Amino acid sequence: MSEWLLKYKGFDPDQEGLREALCTLGNGYFATRGAAAEAEDDGVHYPGTYLAGGYNRLTSHVEGQAIENEDLVNIPNWLPLNFRIDDGDWFTIANVTLDSYEQTLDMHEGILHRKVEFTDQTGKKLRYHSRRLVHMGFPHLAAIQLTLTPLNFTGTIEFRSALDGTVTNNGVPRYRKLEDKHLDPLETHVHNDTILLTVITNQSRIEISQAARTRVYSDGQLLDPERTTDSDKAQIAQNLKLDAKQGQPLTVEKIVTLYTSRDHAISNSSIEALKDARNAKTFNELADTHKLAWENLWSRIKVDLQNTYEEEKVQMQAVLNLYTFHILQTTSRHSIDLDVGVPSRGWHGEAYRGHILWDELFIFPFLNIRMPSIGRALLLYRYRRLKEARAAAREQGYKGAMFPWQSGSNGREESQKIHYNPKSGRWIPDNSRLQRHVNAAIAYNVWKYYEATADISFLCNHGAEMIWEIARFWSSKATWNEDLQRYEIHRVMGPDEYHDGYPDTDEPGLNNNSYTNIMVVWLMNKALKLYELLPEYRAKELSHVLGITKEETERWKHISQRMRIVFHGDGIISQFEGYDKLQEFDWEGYKKRYGNIQRLDRILESEDDTPNRYKLAKQADVLMLFYLFSSEQLNDLFTQLGYEFDRETIPRNINYYIDRTSHGSTLSWVAHSWVLSRSDREGSWDLFKKALQSDIADIQGGTTPEGIHLGAMAGTVALVQKAYTGMDTRDDTLVLNPCLPEHLAKLELRMVYRGHPLFVKVETHKLTITKLCDCPGPVNLDFRGKMKKLNAGQTLEFKL
Amino acid sequence: MSEWLLKYKGFDPDQEGLREALCTLGNGYFATRGAAAEAEDDGVHYPGTYLAGGYNRLTSHVEGQAIENEDLVNIPNWLPLNFRIDDGDWFTIANVTLDSYEQTLDMHEGILHRKVEFTDQTGKKLRYHSRRLVHMGFPHLAAIQLTLTPLNFTGTIEFRSALDGTVTNNGVPRYRKLEDKHLDPLETHVHNDTILLTVITNQSRIEISQAARTRVYSDGQLLDPERTTDSDKAQIAQNLKLDAKQGQPLTVEKIVTLYTSRDHAISNSSIEALKDARNAKTFNELADTHKLAWENLWSRIKVDLQNTYEEEKVQMQAVLNLYTFHILQTTSRHSIDLDVGVPSRGWHGEAYRGHILWDELFIFPFLNIRMPSIGRALLLYRYRRLKEARAAAREQGYKGAMFPWQSGSNGREESQKIHYNPKSGRWIPDNSRLQRHVNAAIAYNVWKYYEATADISFLCNHGAEMIWEIARFWSSKATWNEDLQRYEIHRVMGPDEYHDGYPDTDEPGLNNNSYTNIMVVWLMNKALKLYELLPEYRAKELSHVLGITKEETERWKHISQRMRIVFHGDGIISQFEGYDKLQEFDWEGYKKRYGNIQRLDRILESEDDTPNRYKLAKQADVLMLFYLFSSEQLNDLFTQLGYEFDRETIPRNINYYIDRTSHGSTLSWVAHSWVLSRSDREGSWDLFKKALQSDIADIQGGTTPEGIHLGAMAGTVALVQKAYTGMDTRDDTLVLNPCLPEHLAKLELRMVYRGHPLFVKVETHKLTITKLCDCPGPVNLDFRGKMKKLNAGQTLEFKL
Repeated sequence: MSEWLLKYKGFDPDQEGLREALCTLGNGYFATRGAAAEAEDDGVHYPGTYLAGGYNRLTSHVEGQAIENEDLVNIPNWLPLNFRIDDGDWFTIANVTLDSYEQTLDMHEGILHRKVEFTDQTGKKLRYHSRRLVHMGFPHLAAIQLTLTPLNFTGTIEFRSALDGTVTNNGVPRYRKLEDKHLDPLETHVHNDTILLTVITNQSRIEISQAARTRVYSDGQLLDPERTTDSDKAQIAQNLKLDAKQGQPLTVEKIVTLYTSRDHAISNSSIEALKDARNAKTFNELADTHKLAWENLWSRIKVDLQNTYEEEKVQMQAVLNLYTFHILQTTSRHSIDLDVGVPSRGWHGEAYRGHILWDELFIFPFLNIRMPSIGRALLLYRYRRLKEARAAAREQGYKGAMFPWQSGSNGREESQKIHYNPKSGRWIPDNSRLQRHVNAAIAYNVWKYYEATADISFLCNHGAEMIWEIARFWSSKATWNEDLQRYEIHRVMGPDEYHDGYPDTDEPGLNNNSYTNIMVVWLMNKALKLYELLPEYRAKELSHVLGITKEETERWKHISQRMRIVFHGDGIISQFEGYDKLQEFDWEGYKKRYGNIQRLDRILESEDDTPNRYKLAKQADVLMLFYLFSSEQLNDLFTQLGYEFDRETIPRNINYYIDRTSHGSTLSWVAHSWVLSRSDREGSWDLFKKALQSDIADIQGGTTPEGIHLGAMAGTVALVQKAYTGMDTRDDTLVLNPCLPEHLAKLELRMVYRGHPLFVKVETHKLTITKLCDCPGPVNLDFRGKMKKLNAGQTLEFKL
Repeated sequence: MSEWLLKYKGFDPDQEGLREALCTLGNGYFATRGAAAEAEDDGVHYPGTYLAGGYNRLTSHVEGQAIENEDLVNIPNWLPLNFRIDDGDWFTIANVTLDSYEQTLDMHEGILHRKVEFTDQTGKKLRYHSRRLVHMGFPHLAAIQLTLTPLNFTGTIEFRSALDGTVTNNGVPRYRKLEDKHLDPLETHVHNDTILLTVITNQSRIEISQAARTRVYSDGQLLDPERTTDSDKAQIAQNLKLDAKQGQPLTVEKIVTLYTSRDHAISNSSIEALKDARNAKTFNELADTHKLAWENLWSRIKVDLQNTYEEEKVQMQAVLNLYTFHILQTTSRHSIDLDVGVPSRGWHGEAYRGHILWDELFIFPFLNIRMPSIGRALLLYRYRRLKEARAAAREQGYKGAMFPWQSGSNGREESQKIHYNPKSGRWIPDNSRLQRHVNAAIAYNVWKYYEATADISFLCNHGAEMIWEIARFWSSKATWNEDLQRYEIHRVMGPDEYHDGYPDTDEPGLNNNSYTNIMVVWLMNKALKLYELLPEYRAKELSHVLGITKEETERWKHISQRMRIVFHGDGIISQFEGYDKLQEFDWEGYKKRYGNIQRLDRILESEDDTPNRYKLAKQADVLMLFYLFSSEQLNDLFTQLGYEFDRETIPRNINYYIDRTSHGSTLSWVAHSWVLSRSDREGSWDLFKKALQSDIADIQGGTTPEGIHLGAMAGTVALVQKAYTGMDTRDDTLVLNPCLPEHLAKLELRMVYRGHPLFVKVETHKLTITKLCDCPGPVNLDFRGKMKKLNAGQTLEFKL
């Protein structure tokens, strides 16, 4: 066991989907283009079987853009590398006897290893060893090295190295009825040891070129085998036939390059792909530079945990590394220059069809203080879609900008209108687009990015416009209740997707979702605060361009003071107006009857019932407020509205809602562990461990093979780096107030705050923070209310 | 006369090329896609005539990428809007009698007006008034509004609104033998009042979609005329026939949208173009938002001159505004998110075929303290082409990165190998690619950008890598002269393109060009300084990734101390080794014989002679050092090398070289005016006025119609904002040391220094500087050696 290795011994076809999702390789570029290296496709398995079997997830979305149904895009398989002995059948795992099988993802070097020994149907024994990488230094490049050793025979080995443009998107079983063919072939081409395939996506018309250079070595010497090429317009393969001697390894290296028509600095995609493939170095040289790139990444981004429980120690660090590994592969410096968001399932999972949802809210706390330039790129992705968000608001009769719940390539709403319940076999209405709170999340991300970076130029040129346009949307969405003298927000959904309307009515949506209403109050504060933060001339100029009137900003102010929040019982913040009238749910009965009741929505619907009737939740809703805001901030917000907020409000509400949650979303463990991190360290630790299990053990029962849960992964890492360090950004101050779980002895990480690289170490009784550069200006620190300045090269220690 | 209007009365076909170049509209996006609105193409002129006559420059380069010969790209004409009366011939300016003609470019609002009255061959009189814009707020949009009034008849008017994909690139006469057709048609489409044309460029395979919505109004009322559409695959036109009454104006509005396959946030280019055209507002509404965008730009960027000579005052300000207008149209916030450089002739001129040269050296001094985010985008354009620069260095046996003299789309060298001398009719070898000094210019731009912005994140992630890789190139290019114990640089060209080798030898290149050698010394200083500036971990990490060894940096240090500089005569810095052995040139004789001798290279070659034999220069070479460095900086550089540098060195060299310069480049006036600005204010002022004439009067005799000289324009504006204010950035200090020409009473401009917006006013005896925001941190000012801090909202005054 090592903290850097994810190891599988033995081969279990039933586990392949999960294994492949977790062992996916990427580098931000390849990943966004969907050509992440997948586990089943390097020739060990017969591609046909797996393509037909639903595992061709190598294939995915193009260009980091959310994609609608008719837009789903496959990338041509780029690593089909197969072989056959003595002109026999091409290798198929089903037709051989496995003598040993070991697959290892080495996260430290970013390489996937596979070591297999097998005996074929004619009794020939072979040793197979492959290594593959998606290069973290040269974004357009991936490579596989495969070494075959005949163990008990001498004969011929023929390698087949192909590029395949006929792949389809069928990785998610319940999407199989959707169009799954998204590529039209353009050209194939061969040039000595290099082949080229160019295809074009059939809706978005993005050209994709891949080139593959295939070379064979024996004893380190380059061989010059006979090559035959077969191709049609949609695929091309080169066959290399060699004499193989017993005990003598033959090594084939396939170096693949990928360019699309959306890449910068190209002549055209096929010229660049060919040029790079032909000029590429050997696998070993590439592996060296690739490892170096990963080393540098890890040295900056790894979160070091020292668990006091020896038995959990390595495993916990390994999973934390795995989660970090996937974040670093999905969003990297290579994706900054593209126009991409972060889809819920990373870039290689087909679930949600590549759409962009609100997951950034869980990813920004990680990015802001580790890799802020990636956060900036994600916000620009939203900024570029303001036009569509404005059009959507206008279409519904609102002002400003209304970003969609599921965002498609050009920013249009792509939420499904009906969805399928596999439990009942029924298609049911889907109102999830009413989760307008995504518009608060985007503004929140803008603000937190600014707080963490002091990037005033971003705020001036992009951020302020987003916040103001979103504020306008909410201002037009809010209505004035003359009787109560309060503003209300009607017909929305909160984060808890189990409630999409009131029982016994067909009209969707709920009124006064507390999470939404408080977020809007916070947003109005920030929208107004911008008038102080921006240089005066810019605030004037932008207000003028957007046509923001004095009346509007006065209404924002009024909303921020008079928004309605509904309470029930003894100081419980109602999830929404009328929540108190719902029935309590029979948790014990259902647990007994169904075992796993995470997806109560499907269970109840299959019983002709609906979660709308009950006091239950899929995931944190009211509790999201405690996830996003400190108790001081919440106290300020409620007080500003004229509501009481006492010290007991938070634990009271946590206890109330946590008892009524099924954790039907992987994000739920993260949010709940977070809110308990101070009040119930033991309970929080248990939930944290569950969060660490959610993908590795596929605890939702089958959704990980459809793609990792990137928000949950990032949220889990952010939990460690934020909740346990008590880290927050507030105005121009970095707040630190560590509170380690009992089970942790030490926590170490590097951060970047407002351009200053910092090193933070939390031990049980000590916090140490060092500024790692000479850059001018101090960092303002708030340690438990005490203000300190951290200067160049300085280290500060605080007793805990 | 107004400082905002460029007005032409009367119509002179011979002047159309110049007029059209100066009246080009753009917005950074449209411009980079080449679809700048051109003067001859709105229906006043018969397109056929002008297309055949070489004026179809509406048409140009795609995607802001430098383009090689076979890549030259035309954008379909997007404003062919013609008309005919009573089913007669389509309007042609050649076939009517012009009663009056006035064309006005209103720079303040960014609108081109044309007012014409004419009588056709049948005696019908019409009044024609058109306004056109390329929208500065909505980058994908341009529009024309054309109002026709029958003055002496009643009949029918038929408008024809077309999109034309058959345009060619033939704007530069001497390129006519090159391939000029670069578009393949893909589709045309009509939807009610909107037509669509999609084409694809035939080498780079960039898809371009344009949609046009055409509507007709009378008295503000939308009419519903009969529409007929005719189209083939490459063009589409909609004809609208209406009854026209004497004295009653008919107004047609054509709103055009443009998207390419390289745009962000699109579904595909045709969907977006169609959607935007259909949803567009009316011309008047668009004009309002367009004007507002321009107002905001001007309020920030205008340089206000108060000339004491009343007769020059308005004209001088008008030309300065015109130059600024073209910069703002070529590089704008709309080009930041694209992958574009700045070509020498802007984006609409076809000369240099869209290649990127070293003009940025003249543009950065303008951008760095006015619109630094555009500067950053230009540097990223270079950064993305590092791979190609590295390959070019390796190919020539050098290390590091060698950027090309003329940079093509993917960063490859695109300098011509032969060029045409129209004077002799001969093709002669072109060695201009030996101007390796572009590699010093790029590093210089990186450094000055950093000094002006303190953008350490850019330096860490991009800038340092560029500087170090360029330093490596020069280090491998420099050779050690054991006899002299000095480093030398052989076989290069300096900025003066008249010297590309030694006389009486066929081997191209010169040794020890002083400009190059000093730039390399400066570069080595900065490459080493980076080790102090970057956070230590980042310096280590990047050195490791690039494989920079201790030996290498020691060699850099050594080069910075032991570079050879050649002198001759009485302290004259030799332009290159052996310059002193060249013959003096018979300036008077040639001036008498040829009149304009700016292009002496062509004259001498046509006489079977060569400039290589003479002490003459096309443009500043040694003097570029005084353009880029202050006397203190030069003193430090020469002293560090162990050479003497006394107070008289600068004026002595200025006098020596200025007498030997033909000003064959428009950049020459700028550089020379700059270097004289302190020592010879009167002479400097004269050259400044020449620089202000260079495009407006086309003083090079015919090159302006091939495209404006953007470097000279930007350099001229920068001259005012830098030389006259004595403004420089040095480390973390803003240096100000104003010295107004006698003819200026006042100079006012807004700046941004390290994120702080500033207002600077220079009067004859007073300098006033105000910080326009509350952002934290002071600005460090150096006023004539005295250090001051300028705090939030503060104003400082200095006596001059």
